[in-house]
Amino acid sequence: MLQKEPGLKDIKEALNRIGKHIHQTPVLRNRTIEKLVGCELFFKCENFQKIGAFKARGALNTALSLSNDQSYNGIATHSSGNHAQAIAYAASIVGTKAFIVMPRNAPEVKVNAVRDYGAEIIFCEPNLEARERTLREIVEKTAAYFIHPYNDYNVIAGQATASYELIQEIPGLDFIVTPVGGGGLLSGTVLSSRYTSIATKVIAGEPEGADDAYQSFKKGKIVPSINPNTIADGLLTSLGDKTFNIIKSGVENIYLVNDEEIVSAMKLIWERMKIIVEPSGAVPLATVLKNKDTFLNKKIGIIISGGNVDLSKNYFI
Amino acid sequence: MLQKEPGLKDIKEALNRIGKHIHQTPVLRNRTIEKLVGCELFFKCENFQKIGAFKARGALNTALSLSNDQSYNGIATHSSGNHAQAIAYAASIVGTKAFIVMPRNAPEVKVNAVRDYGAEIIFCEPNLEARERTLREIVEKTAAYFIHPYNDYNVIAGQATASYELIQEIPGLDFIVTPVGGGGLLSGTVLSSRYTSIATKVIAGEPEGADDAYQSFKKGKIVPSINPNTIADGLLTSLGDKTFNIIKSGVENIYLVNDEEIVSAMKLIWERMKIIVEPSGAVPLATVLKNKDTFLNKKIGIIISGGNVDLSKNYFI
Repeated sequence: MLQKEPGLKDIKEALNRIGKHIHQTPVLRNRTIEKLVGCELFFKCENFQKIGAFKARGALNTALSLSNDQSYNGIATHSSGNHAQAIAYAASIVGTKAFIVMPRNAPEVKVNAVRDYGAEIIFCEPNLEARERTLREIVEKTAAYFIHPYNDYNVIAGQATASYELIQEIPGLDFIVTPVGGGGLLSGTVLSSRYTSIATKVIAGEPEGADDAYQSFKKGKIVPSINPNTIADGLLTSLGDKTFNIIKSGVENIYLVNDEEIVSAMKLIWERMKIIVEPSGAVPLATVLKNKDTFLNKKIGIIISGGNVDLSKNYFI
Repeated sequence: MLQKEPGLKDIKEALNRIGKHIHQTPVLRNRTIEKLVGCELFFKCENFQKIGAFKARGALNTALSLSNDQSYNGIATHSSGNHAQAIAYAASIVGTKAFIVMPRNAPEVKVNAVRDYGAEIIFCEPNLEARERTLREIVEKTAAYFIHPYNDYNVIAGQATASYELIQEIPGLDFIVTPVGGGGLLSGTVLSSRYTSIATKVIAGEPEGADDAYQSFKKGKIVPSINPNTIADGLLTSLGDKTFNIIKSGVENIYLVNDEEIVSAMKLIWERMKIIVEPSGAVPLATVLKNKDTFLNKKIGIIISGGNVDLSKNYFI
């Protein structure tokens, strides 16, 4: 397992390791949206990824990096979101068990998705303390290996493969814009840009209602996420020390967008590109739309992080 | 202008004519859905086409086939749906005016889409008689060229390019399944299969609430569509004599699906493939899901006809 910041070799090895179990997702363009913002946009579509989000990359890279002994008793995590499905999927590939701690009020559609991969679900009270305690209990009881959703170098190397693929396919990007929650995708993007496209500036978009990464970036120390409130439910968590150190060292800027701007960008993507993106995945486009001057006439990579939405909900009324 | 059934040469010429103004849309697969139905499915994604539907092909082929004299005074049609946008788009490519007769209760989103292409909209009462009368008046007044939405050999040759592309990319299909409304896409599919993949059987899916093509096919003569009622709002029209003759001569079968089955197939596509498909475009998958025995272990092309939906509406409550 990686004990320090992944190098280029680690990212290449990660891609090699996970390659046959993930999709090399397409890079799409849309002229209408490009006209609207006055720049070239290259959408790396991780909504088409296995489990519907980039999280499959990091979870799989970590699970496949474990020794047989380490994975023998299963892998475990707590999550109500895409990481839960990612771990369940990774376990099915590795051929081991998955134990997923989920809050008992998790949406049924997400519970079912995790169950469909054959994972064992352990319900707990819907708060962070209960989630962490329940996970500790499960790990003690089962000796399963805990895979953190982002603050882990193997996970970061896995997430880095998304921007690595994007840069290989579209050289000469001026910017790559990603969302930021715990910082796994963002820190991975910093590393792959640093190693393979040094002139590309990495920008993050973050919801105003969960602005801890913005605060942390400005203050130079981790500010935890307290009572976050945003439609972008994949971006609620705090940064970790590993992701923050990389972000500090290489992110150009973090911009805030509000929920109205996120929904409006999301609608533009659904309507014009005919693809389903979840609110978190629309944050980068919202960021570009809000800061047109910064991005005018530039060549921009946009990471669409995922497409898992609750279709019984109407986002656009 | 074509005066008889398009031949292979006409379809190839159509593709050549429209090629640089349309997208060669991708063919997507989805393992989860394939497992569900027990066959191989190749989705030809015309929801990613210009104007969000295959209609761009036929309209553009016809508009580009006109002489300068014929197109000098503009092109015209009546439509509240995808054909309206297609004609508006085609006019913008040819560099002429578009006159679109629309019912005054047409959804604002569709009116705006047509207007965005620079077309002139003429509103009329929401019934077929008023639409046809208003169109005649406009054509008399402006001398614009009327392009029929489907009962025109140039339109049919244009629509045929979708299945032609699909067959070139995926040889050896056992079936191609399309929706049927006026029959432009279906008759085009019959022709391209006949010329380039004779063993491929062409099947159509039709909503129970607009079953005129089914009735016509069974009875061997055109049964008009009277008071159709279905969520698949792109499939309400009657067949034309040109489309019906081709359909009669080459369609293997027409199956009916109800609105619940259409919505359920649509949800499956949105949820699993992360792409937006309109109800009419989900009819082929609904057809395959409903007739699993017929399609078991086969290699099937599915034409996703379009992706223009009203996002303020919730289809999945």
